[in-house]
Amino acid sequence: MDPRSAHPGPRPRYAAWTRTTNAITRHMVGIQPPGSINLAGGLPAPEIYPVEAVRAASQRALDRFGARALAYSPVAGIPELREAIARRHSRPGRRLGPENVLITSGGLQALDFIGRVLVEAGDTILAQFPTYLGAIDAWRPLGARYAHLDWRAPHAVQRSAAAAAKFVYSVPNFSNPTGALVPLGQRRALLDACREAGAVLVEDDPYGALFYDGPPVPTMFDLEAETGDDGPYRGNVVYLGTLSKSIGPGLRIGWAIGEAGLIQGISLGKQGSDIGTAAFTQAIAVELLAAGVDHAVHDRMIATYRRRRDALVAAASAHLSARFDFEVPVGGMFLWLTARDPDFDTDGLWQVAFDAGVSYAPRSVFDPAARLRDAIRLNFTLNDEATLAEGALRLSRAVERHLQRPLEHGPQAEERPR
Amino acid sequence: MDPRSAHPGPRPRYAAWTRTTNAITRHMVGIQPPGSINLAGGLPAPEIYPVEAVRAASQRALDRFGARALAYSPVAGIPELREAIARRHSRPGRRLGPENVLITSGGLQALDFIGRVLVEAGDTILAQFPTYLGAIDAWRPLGARYAHLDWRAPHAVQRSAAAAAKFVYSVPNFSNPTGALVPLGQRRALLDACREAGAVLVEDDPYGALFYDGPPVPTMFDLEAETGDDGPYRGNVVYLGTLSKSIGPGLRIGWAIGEAGLIQGISLGKQGSDIGTAAFTQAIAVELLAAGVDHAVHDRMIATYRRRRDALVAAASAHLSARFDFEVPVGGMFLWLTARDPDFDTDGLWQVAFDAGVSYAPRSVFDPAARLRDAIRLNFTLNDEATLAEGALRLSRAVERHLQRPLEHGPQAEERPR
Repeated sequence: MDPRSAHPGPRPRYAAWTRTTNAITRHMVGIQPPGSINLAGGLPAPEIYPVEAVRAASQRALDRFGARALAYSPVAGIPELREAIARRHSRPGRRLGPENVLITSGGLQALDFIGRVLVEAGDTILAQFPTYLGAIDAWRPLGARYAHLDWRAPHAVQRSAAAAAKFVYSVPNFSNPTGALVPLGQRRALLDACREAGAVLVEDDPYGALFYDGPPVPTMFDLEAETGDDGPYRGNVVYLGTLSKSIGPGLRIGWAIGEAGLIQGISLGKQGSDIGTAAFTQAIAVELLAAGVDHAVHDRMIATYRRRRDALVAAASAHLSARFDFEVPVGGMFLWLTARDPDFDTDGLWQVAFDAGVSYAPRSVFDPAARLRDAIRLNFTLNDEATLAEGALRLSRAVERHLQRPLEHGPQAEERPR
Repeated sequence: MDPRSAHPGPRPRYAAWTRTTNAITRHMVGIQPPGSINLAGGLPAPEIYPVEAVRAASQRALDRFGARALAYSPVAGIPELREAIARRHSRPGRRLGPENVLITSGGLQALDFIGRVLVEAGDTILAQFPTYLGAIDAWRPLGARYAHLDWRAPHAVQRSAAAAAKFVYSVPNFSNPTGALVPLGQRRALLDACREAGAVLVEDDPYGALFYDGPPVPTMFDLEAETGDDGPYRGNVVYLGTLSKSIGPGLRIGWAIGEAGLIQGISLGKQGSDIGTAAFTQAIAVELLAAGVDHAVHDRMIATYRRRRDALVAAASAHLSARFDFEVPVGGMFLWLTARDPDFDTDGLWQVAFDAGVSYAPRSVFDPAARLRDAIRLNFTLNDEATLAEGALRLSRAVERHLQRPLEHGPQAEERPR
């Protein structure tokens, strides 16, 4: 007898949430087919990664930390990195110490842990929509409900929405996916509403350094410091930062800053996941920050990304504006194209575009219910100007092909666990 | 009016599972008070960490991978590392490819994701007890029930227990915390029961290279290959490995190996957490494995740990055997001491011992209900022989002090989120 027939192999029943996963993230960070143009990811330009600075920082980290670089990190991070992040974000009205900082393995991991320690099935998360697909992925297992954050809602409405939620999730600088910049007044209003409601306000700020036109708008975390008393931080904001855009995502260094008790609570999620971020990459981050490598890279990065944004905007104007509306983003990584025809199916377009050698992120992946299909997100930071122009051209041809022969299947159908 | 009174700061209600967290993990990997002897952690000897080999491997990794070392990794890992792990574990009867390997940020993270994608509230995990406290931490948020894996149970009983569980969790090599080595026959029996039941068998093997007396016992993963057909792996085992014991936990490199569809399913957890393990530390791991650094370190590690095991056993015999029973572990990192008095409260002893300058892991942290208190786990790999002897002596004095004046509070009471 064939032993296989007696031993059929594993056939587990997966948790229900796995049926709602998106395949776009795996595509974005996965191996790309040769010749294909990836406009789907939120990926930095690889030629800007400071490889030689990281090489030098790795040496200094091993010189300074020795065996500590290969040992377990404390759950919340090595003290030197927590201290360095605290120092960078301290200012008049807000004195931060290491106890206010949790080091995470990339920015998304903080969202995972915030959800894990706060949310139980049926709890509500108040979030802007469309929203970061990573956040949706992180919170899928929780059985959370979502309420729609309206930045323009009257104060009392916002306050009661915040009070009813476990926490509020926002990306005010170049919102992922739309690239929208939330104006100062709306930031102040949301902050006030959350403070009055006693609500945790998660301010996710991976793109905060990527302003291409005009000066930065203050974060809600910094606005809150304006009324602070120079004492230990006791505010409502949990501010999320990362080295993924300023140095490189391959280090997986992010951080959450907040009130010390809240940071300790969020750390419980980390204790049950990777125990602590790699001590070696944390030690490298200490050296990179001390040498100001992120600042040294910044000007070149801004100049490069601004040129690329302009190139994609020009190409989209030339090739895609008959079918899509868009605004020129003043920062960040993304151009958000909304179909003029509200019944346009960007999930259906996906495979046609992929077959034509270009990929993008469809609106459905930024929707927890995966229903909305009338828009797409294009990244302009990864590829050079000529490639962006070619990508927009390929996409426009795919659009016309798609409109001649609509398809049923989108990226959601792929790679489902069995 | 003081603005603080109008803005009371965040006061979220935490998820219920956070009330059951253990404080020992944070202590184990945290900053130790000067002069204190840490016998609580499962920590390698820092003087064995191959710092110079990691330095060289970091350089080679940047030479070879360049900007890729600073970019996002694919969710399941960079192909070179997945391939290297697959090659190491391929043998007659089992052909593994990269599709069978998920790279994780340390071994515990695999347990987090296995739980997350498979378990829903009320599902059962069949696990040996006492069990790894990290596993308990990882699965706290899930609302799982535990069933007790009995390695000696009759075949039909084991098979039906496996069939009723979402998965089976086992640490057959020097079980954490007891240090027990599961004999070959019991491994075969559990493997057969799981295969007949179609159950996923998670074999967690961080200590598999740490045999001090006699030859290694084959893993269940290798036993399964004996009846394999040299084709792609379709078996029931998910095998977990790590570089944390052989190179150093500061790299946070672990892996899960299993049937390709199951590995893809488990990867969904990773997509929603850290997206992928740091490409840089993965690239370093590729270079370390190619250079055989873990093998080069191995002999010295075994000799060092064997001496330390013997030193702690001698000290425990001299100072602790009046109050505790124990068996000499033939491998691993731990000595498990069971109090002769079943009412002995090792949670109550903890603070007394800590005040006397020594820490350990009490039995309660290896029990999901945190109730059992009659045993303690001592680590013998972190400290040298003289320190181990001093630690055992301090512990024996703390025991006598504790028995004269029992205390109520244990480590469970600390650091609760508010």
